[in-house]
Amino acid sequence: MQTLQQQIDFILELDRLKGVCRQALIKSDENRQENSAEHSWHVAMTAHVLHRYAEEPVDVSRVVMMLLIHDVVEIDAGDTFAFAATHELDAQQGIEIEAAKRIFGLLPESQSRELEALWHEFEHAETADARFAKAIDRVLPLLQNMQNEGGSWARHSVSKSQVVVRNQYLEGLAPTLWAYVLEQLDIAVENKWLKPD
Amino acid sequence: MQTLQQQIDFILELDRLKGVCRQALIKSDENRQENSAEHSWHVAMTAHVLHRYAEEPVDVSRVVMMLLIHDVVEIDAGDTFAFAATHELDAQQGIEIEAAKRIFGLLPESQSRELEALWHEFEHAETADARFAKAIDRVLPLLQNMQNEGGSWARHSVSKSQVVVRNQYLEGLAPTLWAYVLEQLDIAVENKWLKPD
Repeated sequence: MQTLQQQIDFILELDRLKGVCRQALIKSDENRQENSAEHSWHVAMTAHVLHRYAEEPVDVSRVVMMLLIHDVVEIDAGDTFAFAATHELDAQQGIEIEAAKRIFGLLPESQSRELEALWHEFEHAETADARFAKAIDRVLPLLQNMQNEGGSWARHSVSKSQVVVRNQYLEGLAPTLWAYVLEQLDIAVENKWLKPD
Repeated sequence: MQTLQQQIDFILELDRLKGVCRQALIKSDENRQENSAEHSWHVAMTAHVLHRYAEEPVDVSRVVMMLLIHDVVEIDAGDTFAFAATHELDAQQGIEIEAAKRIFGLLPESQSRELEALWHEFEHAETADARFAKAIDRVLPLLQNMQNEGGSWARHSVSKSQVVVRNQYLEGLAPTLWAYVLEQLDIAVENKWLKPD
């Protein structure tokens, strides 16, 4: 029963991700801020729906799992806004590595190793699965901001070129999605949701 | 681009699940009620962590996908409390079938068919994957209620036998989990979180 108790401790610890706030807004729920648990669900669904656009074929069930766990470290580390200053993003990285050790470490040894490795794979973005997962994690907030009249872009005065840089690796990974993104960015600038360059 | 636009319309429609409230409480977030999007993430993670307890082997990536989509119909149908009156639960079923048609119907034909079929498989619980997915969807609220000093049980005066009936098919599917559940229910009765029979 000790193994099961460790697994249940991990499952109950996950509950805390529902209390970590992100910058994205929920249009259908009084424009409240999104939390990282519901984001993890949404982005996993997005990857499932869009995986056939990946130029290099991906194992969609691995991509889905990566996205389900990619933000678990925020239980300890909190969320950092994508367009925060570089030194903030760098500081965040060390905290997240410790968080991954602690949180996945609640699980029995073999599962702990498996999920921590999957999290590192996502972070390093060196495999096709991880690169695609990361691209989808970046494109979903763009779709949400378009639905929310600029959303977090407008509130933080983000410029078009910042979003282009952040999404640019879609260009090689999934050209159809990249073409769609470029169209959306022009619409966002026209509507003054994004600053022009 | 029409196919992609349909997929994006579906992805944006999913945002609304974040506004559907359930009975479970989030301990780490001021005891607010859980929504169905974050629940879907949590239950998919739970299935991943616990799938090796399934007596009859399951395809865990299918189980995870089933759980990611199992509550999408609540965008139209809302959540019904597990221990609601039978006539309420029956009425809900018809509404959910229509909701599945509408919401998965936003997707291009082949994806729409694939996800609607997966949703029906979960609902009917006739395959090993679906039965296990359903058992996990029932056991997670129990773990949450134990963490929340009775949570929704205490607020709705639920009795031990109601929870036993609801979880009983764990007995054959995953005996180790079933034994754990029975232990927890005794603790819950002792603590007056559940009514004795």
